[in-house]
Amino acid sequence: MKAIVKEAPGPGLAVRDVVVPSIGTTDVLIRVQAAGICGTDAHIWEWNHWAASRLKPPLIIGHEFAGEVVAVGREVRGIAPGQIVSAEGHLNCGHCVLCRNGDAHVCRDMKIIGVDVDGAFAEYIRMPASNIWPIPPEVPIEVAAIHDPLGNAFHTVLATPVAGATVLIQGAGPIGLMAIAIARAAGAARVICSETNPLRRALAAKLGAHVVVEPGAGLSAAVGDATDGLGVDVVCEMSGHPDAIRSSLELVRNGGHVRLLGLPTDAVSIDLAGTVIFKGITIYGVLGRRMYDTWTQMSAFLKAGLIDVRPIITHRVPFERFEEGIAAIRSGQAGKVILTMESA
Amino acid sequence: MKAIVKEAPGPGLAVRDVVVPSIGTTDVLIRVQAAGICGTDAHIWEWNHWAASRLKPPLIIGHEFAGEVVAVGREVRGIAPGQIVSAEGHLNCGHCVLCRNGDAHVCRDMKIIGVDVDGAFAEYIRMPASNIWPIPPEVPIEVAAIHDPLGNAFHTVLATPVAGATVLIQGAGPIGLMAIAIARAAGAARVICSETNPLRRALAAKLGAHVVVEPGAGLSAAVGDATDGLGVDVVCEMSGHPDAIRSSLELVRNGGHVRLLGLPTDAVSIDLAGTVIFKGITIYGVLGRRMYDTWTQMSAFLKAGLIDVRPIITHRVPFERFEEGIAAIRSGQAGKVILTMESA
Amino acid sequence: MKAIVKEAPGPGLAVRDVVVPSIGTTDVLIRVQAAGICGTDAHIWEWNHWAASRLKPPLIIGHEFAGEVVAVGREVRGIAPGQIVSAEGHLNCGHCVLCRNGDAHVCRDMKIIGVDVDGAFAEYIRMPASNIWPIPPEVPIEVAAIHDPLGNAFHTVLATPVAGATVLIQGAGPIGLMAIAIARAAGAARVICSETNPLRRALAAKLGAHVVVEPGAGLSAAVGDATDGLGVDVVCEMSGHPDAIRSSLELVRNGGHVRLLGLPTDAVSIDLAGTVIFKGITIYGVLGRRMYDTWTQMSAFLKAGLIDVRPIITHRVPFERFEEGIAAIRSGQAGKVILTMESA
Amino acid sequence: MKAIVKEAPGPGLAVRDVVVPSIGTTDVLIRVQAAGICGTDAHIWEWNHWAASRLKPPLIIGHEFAGEVVAVGREVRGIAPGQIVSAEGHLNCGHCVLCRNGDAHVCRDMKIIGVDVDGAFAEYIRMPASNIWPIPPEVPIEVAAIHDPLGNAFHTVLATPVAGATVLIQGAGPIGLMAIAIARAAGAARVICSETNPLRRALAAKLGAHVVVEPGAGLSAAVGDATDGLGVDVVCEMSGHPDAIRSSLELVRNGGHVRLLGLPTDAVSIDLAGTVIFKGITIYGVLGRRMYDTWTQMSAFLKAGLIDVRPIITHRVPFERFEEGIAAIRSGQAGKVILTMESA
Repeated sequence: MKAIVKEAPGPGLAVRDVVVPSIGTTDVLIRVQAAGICGTDAHIWEWNHWAASRLKPPLIIGHEFAGEVVAVGREVRGIAPGQIVSAEGHLNCGHCVLCRNGDAHVCRDMKIIGVDVDGAFAEYIRMPASNIWPIPPEVPIEVAAIHDPLGNAFHTVLATPVAGATVLIQGAGPIGLMAIAIARAAGAARVICSETNPLRRALAAKLGAHVVVEPGAGLSAAVGDATDGLGVDVVCEMSGHPDAIRSSLELVRNGGHVRLLGLPTDAVSIDLAGTVIFKGITIYGVLGRRMYDTWTQMSAFLKAGLIDVRPIITHRVPFERFEEGIAAIRSGQAGKVILTMESA
Repeated sequence: MKAIVKEAPGPGLAVRDVVVPSIGTTDVLIRVQAAGICGTDAHIWEWNHWAASRLKPPLIIGHEFAGEVVAVGREVRGIAPGQIVSAEGHLNCGHCVLCRNGDAHVCRDMKIIGVDVDGAFAEYIRMPASNIWPIPPEVPIEVAAIHDPLGNAFHTVLATPVAGATVLIQGAGPIGLMAIAIARAAGAARVICSETNPLRRALAAKLGAHVVVEPGAGLSAAVGDATDGLGVDVVCEMSGHPDAIRSSLELVRNGGHVRLLGLPTDAVSIDLAGTVIFKGITIYGVLGRRMYDTWTQMSAFLKAGLIDVRPIITHRVPFERFEEGIAAIRSGQAGKVILTMESA
Repeated sequence: MKAIVKEAPGPGLAVRDVVVPSIGTTDVLIRVQAAGICGTDAHIWEWNHWAASRLKPPLIIGHEFAGEVVAVGREVRGIAPGQIVSAEGHLNCGHCVLCRNGDAHVCRDMKIIGVDVDGAFAEYIRMPASNIWPIPPEVPIEVAAIHDPLGNAFHTVLATPVAGATVLIQGAGPIGLMAIAIARAAGAARVICSETNPLRRALAAKLGAHVVVEPGAGLSAAVGDATDGLGVDVVCEMSGHPDAIRSSLELVRNGGHVRLLGLPTDAVSIDLAGTVIFKGITIYGVLGRRMYDTWTQMSAFLKAGLIDVRPIITHRVPFERFEEGIAAIRSGQAGKVILTMESA
Repeated sequence: MKAIVKEAPGPGLAVRDVVVPSIGTTDVLIRVQAAGICGTDAHIWEWNHWAASRLKPPLIIGHEFAGEVVAVGREVRGIAPGQIVSAEGHLNCGHCVLCRNGDAHVCRDMKIIGVDVDGAFAEYIRMPASNIWPIPPEVPIEVAAIHDPLGNAFHTVLATPVAGATVLIQGAGPIGLMAIAIARAAGAARVICSETNPLRRALAAKLGAHVVVEPGAGLSAAVGDATDGLGVDVVCEMSGHPDAIRSSLELVRNGGHVRLLGLPTDAVSIDLAGTVIFKGITIYGVLGRRMYDTWTQMSAFLKAGLIDVRPIITHRVPFERFEEGIAAIRSGQAGKVILTMESA
């Protein structure tokens, strides 16, 4: 089968012919129909510091996907060939105390598809049955393909209830844009979005943000206006930028909630006394998706038509022309980029 | 001033001239502009068993209202004449352990306006400053006047999060109808409403229920269809009918939530083993409004335009013709009935 | 191997020779060293209404046990022969929405060992690896053997925090007695126990209850004294008796928590308006043990020596003389009865 | 009356004769019997950067105290002369959205006694009735006098349940020592304490810490041993030291809880990606005491004899010799220092 492969340390990726994976008794084989390209995939293409320290080539990359089940192992229950599915790409160990107690998303023996083991930019992928997520017919395949980042957004926005709350979204990349739609659908009273990139600011407005501003003085003023100077109830930090992280802590109200999803590249200097302790706030670090509460909630929203995230998809490129997708992401002039498996 | 008064034990009510209340140092005097007639007021008119055992005439009745502040006591801060306000009609003691710890809504020394002390069906009412709730200009006075039942609905629906949930509303009286709108705005994936009265079923559909059915087999089938036989995540029981209470426990999913607001007149026989313990469910008794989280959330929804409860108001009658309002409620052919204080 | 078997419908049980179970790729085989006899086992001996409607003989009974792993299937990770283990006896399906979202304890396809499938009163038992719970060396085998009821007690007591709370335990059977010890260790300020049986009242005092009373007027007075008339913060209802259930709702404070574990045999008539809705309380139905938060908490308490439940064990009988154990339970003159596998 | 006064900017404090405060209609006058000296009082004595920027002399200092009610205002209910009381020293506004919704401890218009308004190192103090906390007869006056820091410790330790948890206490100053006792009483399975000062390490062991270590490699090893390398469930950071804050984030388990009470003097550089986001942890900033849940819980523990914090009191000095108390705190060779009002 064809697959997009990092063959050796260094920049670039290549389409190669590889063998179709075999499956064990508790595995499922899926024919990939669509996949999402993530910023992480661009970093792997670039072979940045993180990629060089984590990946062991050769490796098929890609972790956001959906497709059709074509075979199931002997012990698999409740999944059958022909089903359209997506999958949780974080492979947890399943038997540690975290996995057994509802904290599987932070299992310490986690392997990620497309990073630690072969991924989804291929005609076929093998997944453990426990990670499979069936997709209802109401959900288009290209939305199914981006359940991984959409689940990040659900995990972040709904970590505590937002009904009636004022919510600040820091950063309108694909996950930030998804977060806007989710916050609106879950009854946020006011959604403010801060973003430097004009293309993404336009998308933020389209997705339903009540106020869209650039970071800095405009953001502070917008929060002050919307909250009578009190500060927002909830911040979803999606940018990873140190200034955005600091302003999140400054702009949340006393007793409010800040969730951190965006990954800063270095340590961040924080005024803990002034912006955390004296304010009595709660900070939650968001990793992946809760297994599988987040997935259940996401499917319920999509099936009920509560959100439409298709406007976030700005590019659809066929598998063989994946370089165009990577380039679009690296340019910053893109929302979500979908890889379509035409060759499949 | 004019007021609607229960003068002595027995049926009926009368408009009488009474003295305007004087205020203490921590009180506020309000000129009433609009008031809501509640089923409770109809029971007081009828002088049913409950009314006979609780009320000590003579008494000005009415507990749902909004109006304009006309005077404030010397120690009052943050409230000024001219402000439009509603008020929490449950007067808690303020110094017991429940009041001090966030459970003021179940204070054991609670007095209710229009039931235990003089109420709001009058030109003026005196309220403790701590119970006053300012109304933003976005909110029409007749909606301000029904913050008491609307707060019941918010307290019930949002007791645990409903984003992405399937919610069953049992009974489409005014509070049930409000609950439908709130559940939708807070991101419920599917709202099912059960109601015997055709007028109210029509209103339930108008307020946004996805499915509206009569109690009985149709309800069970509707829940089965909407949930693949699993049962609903949340039930809001607004009717107080024993059969509805029992079906709430049967139709909620294992591990789900049932909230009871509707008051049954007698003890109810319940299969606790089969419908509570083996199902691992949680039941929450809903009294009044949380002070003042519920009010904050309600104002946020209204200010943001997340709900419009005006379609629930089917009758508007002037103060002196209050008997028409009572009659409308007693006929069952009404949503919410508003008393307008034209004489004021 | 030898096993205690219900051979056919009707009273009684017999020791029989049966084949040692074979194991699949994800199973574990355990040599049973000790087992607990539960009231349920006595009901199976008696062949009461419930037993007759649920069990399909022939069946090996018994669901509380501990022993040594003697073989593991090919796909099993993290469990090895020689380990001392207990096991969750509720076999959940593992792939329904409840199982995937942390509500596995109320999976609708649950099978219970010793009730629906062959159980633990035998020399060997086969269990799915996912249900195995390793026992640390600090924990005696007879305590390991009663992790099932002990987990019921942990699930009930710690459903919400009890640190600083006044806790009422209704019924001092083995699980009620365990609940007393757990509540004390978790910082309950005052533990009141109500029980009709003098032997069990003596055990309740030994386990650490501050006040031990008979149901009725004495109980009401004891709650009044301990709480200045407010009512207790938390009730753990372990008896299933209708009067105890009603007094639980009466004696909990406004805004408090009642958890129901004891199973009433019939429907119970409840004053929902007066004792649930006007009081704003929360009722939680307790089934089994949360998988596997409850088990983690239980092991932490035992390993740290926070509780000692051995005084609850009043009888230890060898496997072949199991009839003596059943008789002790049926007499009511017993705490916990342990079956020791001497023949093994 | 005599009072300890900061007369003007600069180091030092003086005993002065001042007028007894008059009380308003909602106030209470208390004859102070005992008071606690806090590190903050030592900073005020020193006139450090914080003190110079916040205090407006002349001012009576002191915020930890207990005494006897000698007079109550006309509108005060439930408090009478002769009662022994302590008081919440954070004076919240009472009518902002935070105060009304259970977040009074982070009211933005907070005034602190002994910092912003006259305090408790005096023969008499005036307090709003709403801040008074009655002391039951079981509680010694010197323990009543330190309810302010003891409440900090309760707020920190019990922010989420600790029953069965492994808890790390960073810093064994008076509040850290109190936290050890509380964690043990609330059923923590393992309490580890890290502290540089040998006197305080000895006190930590006396208060019940299972393991007491110096910060650094010893601490990491102790946490590893106690948790099989997983990390602790809960950290209470009481030191404010940047290294302790960073090690808190490193030593908590994935999905665990870190609460920050200790105030760092400068911004702290934190590896948010590695120690917060990838670990999925929750950080809570602890300010003051929750009003008044924390106080209720504290009284319940003390009344039930669940903790004894008297071993933390290492010095008792009479009012006029307050300089000795300040010196003891500044030396680091002290636990808690109590000022006794012998002159009163």
